[in-house]
Amino acid sequence: MSRKIVIIGAVALGPKVACRARRLDPDADIVMLDRDSYISYGGCGIPYYVGGDVADIDGLLSTAYHARRDAAFFENTKRVRALTETEALEIDRAGRRVRVKDLKSGQESWLDYDTLVLATGSTPVIPPIEGRDLPGVMAVANLHQAKWIKESVQRGQVESAVIVGGGAIGLEMAEAFADLWGIQSTVIEMQPHVLPQALGPDMARLVENSFTAAGVSILTGERAARIVGDAENGVQALETASGKRLDCQLVILAVGARPNSELARKAGLAVGRFGGVLVDRRMRTSDPNIFAGGDCVELPHALSGNTVHMPLGSMANRQGRVIGANVTGSHAEFPPVLGSFCMKAFEAGVARAGLTEAQALDAGYKPASATVAMHDRAHFYPTAKIMYLRLIADRVTRRVLGIEAFGANGDAVKARVDAVAAAMRFGASLEDVSNLEVAYAPPYAQAMDILNAAANVVQNVVEGVNAAMPMEEFLRDFEAGKFKVLDVRGAANAASYIEKFGDKWLNIPGEELAARLEEVDPEQPLVLFCNSGQRSYEAQRTMASRGLPVARNVEGGHLLLSALDKAFLGQGEDEK
Amino acid sequence: MSRKIVIIGAVALGPKVACRARRLDPDADIVMLDRDSYISYGGCGIPYYVGGDVADIDGLLSTAYHARRDAAFFENTKRVRALTETEALEIDRAGRRVRVKDLKSGQESWLDYDTLVLATGSTPVIPPIEGRDLPGVMAVANLHQAKWIKESVQRGQVESAVIVGGGAIGLEMAEAFADLWGIQSTVIEMQPHVLPQALGPDMARLVENSFTAAGVSILTGERAARIVGDAENGVQALETASGKRLDCQLVILAVGARPNSELARKAGLAVGRFGGVLVDRRMRTSDPNIFAGGDCVELPHALSGNTVHMPLGSMANRQGRVIGANVTGSHAEFPPVLGSFCMKAFEAGVARAGLTEAQALDAGYKPASATVAMHDRAHFYPTAKIMYLRLIADRVTRRVLGIEAFGANGDAVKARVDAVAAAMRFGASLEDVSNLEVAYAPPYAQAMDILNAAANVVQNVVEGVNAAMPMEEFLRDFEAGKFKVLDVRGAANAASYIEKFGDKWLNIPGEELAARLEEVDPEQPLVLFCNSGQRSYEAQRTMASRGLPVARNVEGGHLLLSALDKAFLGQGEDEK
Repeated sequence: MSRKIVIIGAVALGPKVACRARRLDPDADIVMLDRDSYISYGGCGIPYYVGGDVADIDGLLSTAYHARRDAAFFENTKRVRALTETEALEIDRAGRRVRVKDLKSGQESWLDYDTLVLATGSTPVIPPIEGRDLPGVMAVANLHQAKWIKESVQRGQVESAVIVGGGAIGLEMAEAFADLWGIQSTVIEMQPHVLPQALGPDMARLVENSFTAAGVSILTGERAARIVGDAENGVQALETASGKRLDCQLVILAVGARPNSELARKAGLAVGRFGGVLVDRRMRTSDPNIFAGGDCVELPHALSGNTVHMPLGSMANRQGRVIGANVTGSHAEFPPVLGSFCMKAFEAGVARAGLTEAQALDAGYKPASATVAMHDRAHFYPTAKIMYLRLIADRVTRRVLGIEAFGANGDAVKARVDAVAAAMRFGASLEDVSNLEVAYAPPYAQAMDILNAAANVVQNVVEGVNAAMPMEEFLRDFEAGKFKVLDVRGAANAASYIEKFGDKWLNIPGEELAARLEEVDPEQPLVLFCNSGQRSYEAQRTMASRGLPVARNVEGGHLLLSALDKAFLGQGEDEK
Repeated sequence: MSRKIVIIGAVALGPKVACRARRLDPDADIVMLDRDSYISYGGCGIPYYVGGDVADIDGLLSTAYHARRDAAFFENTKRVRALTETEALEIDRAGRRVRVKDLKSGQESWLDYDTLVLATGSTPVIPPIEGRDLPGVMAVANLHQAKWIKESVQRGQVESAVIVGGGAIGLEMAEAFADLWGIQSTVIEMQPHVLPQALGPDMARLVENSFTAAGVSILTGERAARIVGDAENGVQALETASGKRLDCQLVILAVGARPNSELARKAGLAVGRFGGVLVDRRMRTSDPNIFAGGDCVELPHALSGNTVHMPLGSMANRQGRVIGANVTGSHAEFPPVLGSFCMKAFEAGVARAGLTEAQALDAGYKPASATVAMHDRAHFYPTAKIMYLRLIADRVTRRVLGIEAFGANGDAVKARVDAVAAAMRFGASLEDVSNLEVAYAPPYAQAMDILNAAANVVQNVVEGVNAAMPMEEFLRDFEAGKFKVLDVRGAANAASYIEKFGDKWLNIPGEELAARLEEVDPEQPLVLFCNSGQRSYEAQRTMASRGLPVARNVEGGHLLLSALDKAFLGQGEDEK
């Protein structure tokens, strides 16, 4: 008797399950169904289709070698039956069958299964704002929406777009609009910074600066209040909660996605706090004959103890392979997740894994962290660029909890994050990352790599050897006049700061500090400042060794400050 | 009483120990000495100085922000005494003192220590060949040699160079010569392929092809027999053991380096099989008052159980920090090493970590491995390139033992190797790497990343689901006529192969295979072939399910074959 496998959903996880199951069990009877006519596509490619890297919709529906993955493809090359435009209406767990409806004919029927796989995906959340149903308001979750958006911009009707939601999809759409179409877009994010689930404030600000430098407007701490327009002419503007009116011909809603778990819930399967289907390590739901994966599940986080919803194509692919093994009699497990993430941000790249500092606090850790700014390869190598990297660890256990990185070379940024994520997966400590053996050669790294260096700094912070001040705190409290700055760079580098800030900005070069300590007023609150944070840390050690009060040193120094806050020194005065 | 720390050697490890010790102990009396006048330089930068990326020698002697790291710099900014042109002659362990000689004055004296640090580095091995003392024969280990080489080529006297040794330094020098100077160089390697300690044969061949494509000649399985020339005119040629005469005006000896451990050995400290000083996890020698690190030590390998000699600037930097903590009363440890390595190879990059398949066999493992060829990012993304990745694991424990990768984007190559190295550090299994959560976005990765995919393939190999044939074996045995090829790509792709090989190259496209299996002669030995190895694996599953003998599939398929063996199809016929 051949094993009957029914898979509901045929976008990312479903086809992966089907193909893996087919390879492991040549006799299985495998059926995959989807409401949509489009199946087995790279949904993550939608912004690249809109932005022109993928010329037409077929590019998202094909393999690297131009084989179109439609129902005939699955039938012929995989011996998998793919029922498109077919909806699953009900799961009869006792009878092990699914009631399905052919959306073309309206006909209903039952499909028997030995094993059922839920690959039902997620649906974009539509915020309940006035005007959300106007023509020109669109989410970006499937190829129909993608086509509609691309055709709108191709017709040249869109001069300005407003994107509601500063997560990855919203930002990727803004980049796509700017890159190919020169559309002026504005991204509205209600949190204080973009990518609030992924990044802390300093790294997020670097991302925002990449976007604003490319002409995208970013409004943070702002909500969409109302979309203005009419049914005939479509969208005309979006009004924000603070009263701004943003003229636009297109509004993209990208505020998040909700797991499609109604079918599972109605069948009595356990769901979690985000409404995602709950699964065990083998991706099995609370019914041992039903598996689930991809965008419709939520998964335990490796560090927070909570479950999280991670709608990512990479997750779906890896989970699909695990499920494909489990539904054909093998044993495979999917580990807890770390929330690894990366994104291109115009000329730069950003990546992260683990917990942000705020998430670490929420999870009950006592986080310590530091942001370092260093060259991503030997400083003399022609392609060397500054990379910014934030590392977060627990003060008590010294376990590394999170990494965030930003830099001009996205592959190099991803390299650091992936290495630390791999280590975090195994419970790495600060000491482990401090000595993590990453490959070294001058074209690709410094002898002390930025990820090792970041662990060293956090180690020093945890041990109380380095009293560091986050840049956000520096910017806030310097403006409030809480301290003066002691800049320990050379006089030439400090000059433009002194010119602007006068006697609030002192200067004693690091190499003269030991000899000139009597110039430092022990009563005056000070912070130490240098190019990257390294020399100011050394100055701190020098001052501490002479019994002076410990002045904190500003994380990332001039390199981070000038990248974060272009207005601090004023335009044009910025030194390289 | 301030602690007396004496450091012998001031290139990479020594300065790092000194600076870290100073930061942790402001009162310590720290002395660093070196035979050379140049100290604290980036030796790994020498090829980039010769190749012009670093304009003058000062670039190697300075920080990223142009501070020259000389004796005055250490004295003024670090309060570290640096004695240049000073040689350590003898260690009196009982008396805790070192006899040193000022090479300028010839004067000898004793330096007392509480803790001694050996940072004596390594010396290039000079092979005992005739003519090795001729002018124009040079190793590349210090800045004097680097200057001499650069001045020779700058004078325009060098048209051709021969480099003895196909390790990293030899190859980097060949690239430096070609890049800036247009010097025709030949690299001679006595092993069957370059980088024999780092790579297996297929990845090494890809590196060789990068070099030959750029005009560098590579002679493997070849020895230098004699250098021809005279004292007045210098080198004129190098003769190889097989009788080739290579005209040249410069010979670079780059056959390896030997730890400088005479001082340690004479003082009775334990040394290992490569002559490196042996140290414990805290980098302490067999005398608890003496530490050692950098190029003069050997270290336990995390996977082989043996010690290894790893003369790398990154190692020295990280070890220096550990020693700096230990000599000032803290506790720090340095973990066993993985041999992580990367190198630029003209337009490509290569990286590796862990054991090669041969090294894994030597260490008593039962290795299984696979090479996969895949795009390094979404195939539709404009910068996507093919990456080649070999993963090696133990069949018994399923522990991942090694990774090697090659591709056009060196940062992306390094990203995969560093992530797997981080996981190997914690004893990762194939399953761990199969599900390693690397960051995903189309500009930087495929939804199923190449490193996950490689683990999947090796897993299939170990489980007997995939019977793969390494490319080396395919090339050898196809030529010997041991089998025919069943190409399961489309007819258009197979055409040029069929044209060349006639009925030795059969073609049934994968999607037609199930229906056309009767065309396959069960008596005929076959191997399966496709573009990358994926479709041929699926064909294998199809054949196996119909009871046909298991034909092995060729690893990496057309992508690897065409990159490895440009002559297989003949020039010009190569399809993209």
